[in-house]
Amino acid sequence: MNEQYMRRAIELAKKGAGFVSPNPMVGAVIVKNGRVIGEGYHERCGQLHAERNAIAALTEDAKGATIYVTLEPCCHYGKTPPCTEAIIENKIAKVVIGSRDPNPLVSGKGAKILRDAGIEVVEDFMRKECDEINPIFFHYITKRIPYVSMKYAMTMDGKIATKTGASKWITGEESREDVQRLRHEHRGIMVGIGTVLADNPMLNCRMDGGRSPIRIIADSHLQIPLESKIVTTANEYETIVVTTESCKISNADKVKKLEDAGVCVLEVDEKDGHIALSDMMSKLGEKQIDSILLEGGGTLNDAMLRVGFVNRAYVYIAPKVFGGIDAKTPVEGVGVCEPSEATHFNMVDSKQIGADLRITYIKEVI
Amino acid sequence: MNEQYMRRAIELAKKGAGFVSPNPMVGAVIVKNGRVIGEGYHERCGQLHAERNAIAALTEDAKGATIYVTLEPCCHYGKTPPCTEAIIENKIAKVVIGSRDPNPLVSGKGAKILRDAGIEVVEDFMRKECDEINPIFFHYITKRIPYVSMKYAMTMDGKIATKTGASKWITGEESREDVQRLRHEHRGIMVGIGTVLADNPMLNCRMDGGRSPIRIIADSHLQIPLESKIVTTANEYETIVVTTESCKISNADKVKKLEDAGVCVLEVDEKDGHIALSDMMSKLGEKQIDSILLEGGGTLNDAMLRVGFVNRAYVYIAPKVFGGIDAKTPVEGVGVCEPSEATHFNMVDSKQIGADLRITYIKEVI
Repeated sequence: MNEQYMRRAIELAKKGAGFVSPNPMVGAVIVKNGRVIGEGYHERCGQLHAERNAIAALTEDAKGATIYVTLEPCCHYGKTPPCTEAIIENKIAKVVIGSRDPNPLVSGKGAKILRDAGIEVVEDFMRKECDEINPIFFHYITKRIPYVSMKYAMTMDGKIATKTGASKWITGEESREDVQRLRHEHRGIMVGIGTVLADNPMLNCRMDGGRSPIRIIADSHLQIPLESKIVTTANEYETIVVTTESCKISNADKVKKLEDAGVCVLEVDEKDGHIALSDMMSKLGEKQIDSILLEGGGTLNDAMLRVGFVNRAYVYIAPKVFGGIDAKTPVEGVGVCEPSEATHFNMVDSKQIGADLRITYIKEVI
Repeated sequence: MNEQYMRRAIELAKKGAGFVSPNPMVGAVIVKNGRVIGEGYHERCGQLHAERNAIAALTEDAKGATIYVTLEPCCHYGKTPPCTEAIIENKIAKVVIGSRDPNPLVSGKGAKILRDAGIEVVEDFMRKECDEINPIFFHYITKRIPYVSMKYAMTMDGKIATKTGASKWITGEESREDVQRLRHEHRGIMVGIGTVLADNPMLNCRMDGGRSPIRIIADSHLQIPLESKIVTTANEYETIVVTTESCKISNADKVKKLEDAGVCVLEVDEKDGHIALSDMMSKLGEKQIDSILLEGGGTLNDAMLRVGFVNRAYVYIAPKVFGGIDAKTPVEGVGVCEPSEATHFNMVDSKQIGADLRITYIKEVI
């Protein structure tokens, strides 16, 4: 076994980012006599799995070869036939697996079918690295609510706008491009109504070849203006406005106009006069939204954090100071009283992007 | 010439951090036939220079040897005799110099004296690396005001305290130890009176073998309590309370009590009802304070930044979120209106310290 082949498979898997949701990203490399004779990855939801793409790309007969695959091959008929079949048919001699299937009903079944067919199977090879490709998939498949990545850009003194509310721009062009990639990689993008009213944003993905996320507006009192960019472009970009049942009923006219404009008005339970975030998350999960990029503002960020729905954070820090006791910060709302009540994360990466720094945090699991 | 010897000289120089102020840190390595035969550094203000320490440590005759020294050797009689003399007397054949003497009246003179004595002199060898050892010295020797390093510890959402003002602790133990090293490396430590009233801090250096900085309190209206830790320990740790002339006059009684307690009450010009920061900086410079660690709070940080007195910033970021619209941030005060008016820095380093991240910024020179 050779780590370099699994590393290549991981590299291939990541090419599916943004396109395979709600499926996992998977890569596969077929090796024979020390040479790579086929490689592939899961390119798009509904299309062939990584193993079948690698087999389709074979440059010679795979008989006796070894396949490295980042996730346990499937053994069930879904949109495509099971990959275990293709491996057996092609007389591959050995299968090296990274991640286990996170679905407990399926986990180990693919490996067993292969072993029963006389194939040598190695499991858990570079499992940690392979698991790290698919935090969203592993989260969604077990919890059925979206994996939430909070993103904000702030100055080195923790401001997301000056005291007058001006925020164009905090970070440099490279960081803003990086955010477009994040939008591409998440199925949904979420902001609070305050952000729509203040900035009238588009919230689409402007990356070449990128996929725009479904726009989700948390709007307890249905304040979204019909003339906002979000509403006027709702036929072009999928848009969900989340509000309470009572608000939907008492604003039937506006709801009709929003729906005519192409907006999906999603009603969820009410809690303390606002939308119940837990009900919202369940209902978004039911809509196959496996991941959300949470782009603020401070009130929604605080609410989402305090109910424990933020799984990851991307913090862009610009090398400049705004100052100002009234300047806006990335997480506001109610906040905590004691430092011990803080929401804790683990820093997993920090990277210079242009003149800025991007820090990646994963929610600390206690 | 060999970079490894200069790198060793740089390493030696840094051992003087915190002890040589207001002198520069300097290191020297003497090499003969490919062997290091002597090395030394400037250990403490008033004691021998690096070159003389290296010569004192010689393990064999230096005749024909090469000396690597991070700063041009001095040629004048100060607290110690000129190093050029010692180099000539010991028949060293070649002198490799990193930084030039920043004093234009002296720069190049040491090199000339050596050349006139028949010694081969190389200047500007790894000059950038050598210059970087002594930003404080180069700043102070030319501007005669202290070099200011602003330091703060905040959460990943830019808070230095919760909405109730609780701030113990934001960062972990390793970061707090790192701050003790910063205190050791700066001649003065400065806070605004608000920080004294809120936290009643000691502001000493608790590092083993460290030197406590001179404590400087910016206190326009002489509000410092006589029973504060700063005042009651002023006989033990040098302490300066900066106030305005008019305030000093109208509080003659309190001034007497402060002075009896060992506090130096420094009067400076008044501006808009507060101390004039520029006059304060000049007067602190006159007191041989070459460097200040600025530890807040938000109002003083903002004022010092907006008049351009902050040269460097150390930002410690803890992997946790406080939230809260009323929680305190590291730079408050007036602040800027437009993003283009921000104070700009360059990020020069970022380093994980325990679970935290420390980012180092240097003021952008435009």
